[in-house]
Amino acid sequence: MVTIKRIILDVLKPHHPDCLEFACAIADKSPGIKVELTVDEIDEKTESIIIVIEGESLDYDAIVEVITDLGGSVHSLDEVEVTSKPD
Amino acid sequence: MVTIKRIILDVLKPHHPDCLEFACAIADKSPGIKVELTVDEIDEKTESIIIVIEGESLDYDAIVEVITDLGGSVHSLDEVEVTSKPD
Amino acid sequence: MVTIKRIILDVLKPHHPDCLEFACAIADKSPGIKVELTVDEIDEKTESIIIVIEGESLDYDAIVEVITDLGGSVHSLDEVEVTSKPD
Amino acid sequence: MVTIKRIILDVLKPHHPDCLEFACAIADKSPGIKVELTVDEIDEKTESIIIVIEGESLDYDAIVEVITDLGGSVHSLDEVEVTSKPD
Amino acid sequence: MVTIKRIILDVLKPHHPDCLEFACAIADKSPGIKVELTVDEIDEKTESIIIVIEGESLDYDAIVEVITDLGGSVHSLDEVEVTSKPD
Amino acid sequence: MVTIKRIILDVLKPHHPDCLEFACAIADKSPGIKVELTVDEIDEKTESIIIVIEGESLDYDAIVEVITDLGGSVHSLDEVEVTSKPD
Amino acid sequence: MVTIKRIILDVLKPHHPDCLEFACAIADKSPGIKVELTVDEIDEKTESIIIVIEGESLDYDAIVEVITDLGGSVHSLDEVEVTSKPD
Repeated sequence: MVTIKRIILDVLKPHHPDCLEFACAIADKSPGIKVELTVDEIDEKTESIIIVIEGESLDYDAIVEVITDLGGSVHSLDEVEVTSKPD
Repeated sequence: MVTIKRIILDVLKPHHPDCLEFACAIADKSPGIKVELTVDEIDEKTESIIIVIEGESLDYDAIVEVITDLGGSVHSLDEVEVTSKPD
Repeated sequence: MVTIKRIILDVLKPHHPDCLEFACAIADKSPGIKVELTVDEIDEKTESIIIVIEGESLDYDAIVEVITDLGGSVHSLDEVEVTSKPD
Repeated sequence: MVTIKRIILDVLKPHHPDCLEFACAIADKSPGIKVELTVDEIDEKTESIIIVIEGESLDYDAIVEVITDLGGSVHSLDEVEVTSKPD
Repeated sequence: MVTIKRIILDVLKPHHPDCLEFACAIADKSPGIKVELTVDEIDEKTESIIIVIEGESLDYDAIVEVITDLGGSVHSLDEVEVTSKPD
Repeated sequence: MVTIKRIILDVLKPHHPDCLEFACAIADKSPGIKVELTVDEIDEKTESIIIVIEGESLDYDAIVEVITDLGGSVHSLDEVEVTSKPD
Repeated sequence: MVTIKRIILDVLKPHHPDCLEFACAIADKSPGIKVELTVDEIDEKTESIIIVIEGESLDYDAIVEVITDLGGSVHSLDEVEVTSKPD
């Protein structure tokens, strides 16, 4: 079985909801994960944020759904780490 | 349950109260936290400071309230780390 | 006996399947490995990715086969670490 | 209770008393602390020094008093780390 | 007795055999060693590679022989670490 | 009680006695210390050296005396670390 | 008693004997030491090498003698670390 351990997302979002709400909403949907959100660039109406998410087994689709529901769009998946269980 | 473990704030403040009072006032409102305050830029009447706050479960609103009460304004929330409890 | 512990591949791939599918497909074929995929450059129709794969004993041919099956091509093998068992 | 764990001071001092005397005088007033003093810039009559002070519970006013008594002036408090005890 | 613990070789090789074969062939001749091979520069017919070899007691001549047998030439020995046993 | 744990000295010395003799002479006068001497700049008749001295309780005056006796002159005391014993 | 723990030598040597022979010859004369030799610059007839030697108690004169016997000349002693035994 393959599990996702870590992803780094480059996300474009409106100023509201703010970064804290974004991070909390993502964490809220997935038990046992860590979410680090860093602001990369602030424009007039939007901001680029980098989200690093780590956990024992991440649900990528659920994460993207939360981001989209909050008005954000995943610009790119910059990094992903997956592992496969030994036989 | 989602808890905030670490935030980095970019804050604009008047010269008084000084940085030490700022840091102590923030820590005073939240038991069991660590506050690191670094001066980023000093202007004639104001100074930009970076505040890194870490704890088991930070109360963001209480932190912002202390900063505002002391005459400071949160310019931006540069980084936030949250975790969700495993099921 | 010689075993491959770590390889770094520079791969050119179409945008689809996406990076997550790539990483998962590689891990899925090899039990007990870790796959880190980083996007290096994004062009109109393709993207360059760096794939770091670690495991107790990697099967290089199986890895290349997965990449090729998904439409990717190994541009170069940038790094390889192998060990030989003591006598 | 809030305690100060670490401060970094930017201090302007005359050449005499020298850096060693400065550091020792500060440490002498506060039991159980560590004082690291680095010379930043030397001018004709004065020198800028950076003083890093760490301890379990620093007394800021006592530290500033020692510096002033030796003819130095605190140019700025560049960094401060405080902690609050858990409830 | 003096033993070689680590060497770094700058090697020029044809594209074939590839890096993986090179690394495996070196490791295959020496039990209990680790071989890290990094590609430094790729030209039309040749490539420059850096080979880091570590082990309890490396046999330098055997290593060079393998490289030469595969069509490579040692351009330089960039680093070497040796130890002598205590009396 | 205040003790000196570490000092960094910028010293100007003639080429002879050489760096090794300098380091050994300093260490010889103070039991239980470590002396690291790095050459910073070599001129025709003199050389600038950086001396890092660490120990449980350094005797600064004794160190300077050794340096002066060997023909060196302390250009500056670049860093000093002192500690005070807890009550 | 003062002992030398570590020295860094800048040495000019002919191409032959090669670096490996140099390192081994130095280690061979001194039991229980580690010799790291890095090539810094290669000219037509000579090469500059940096030799880092570590041990419990290095014999500097013996090391220099080996280097000289092999046709090398110590260009400079770049760093030296010595310690003195506690009383």
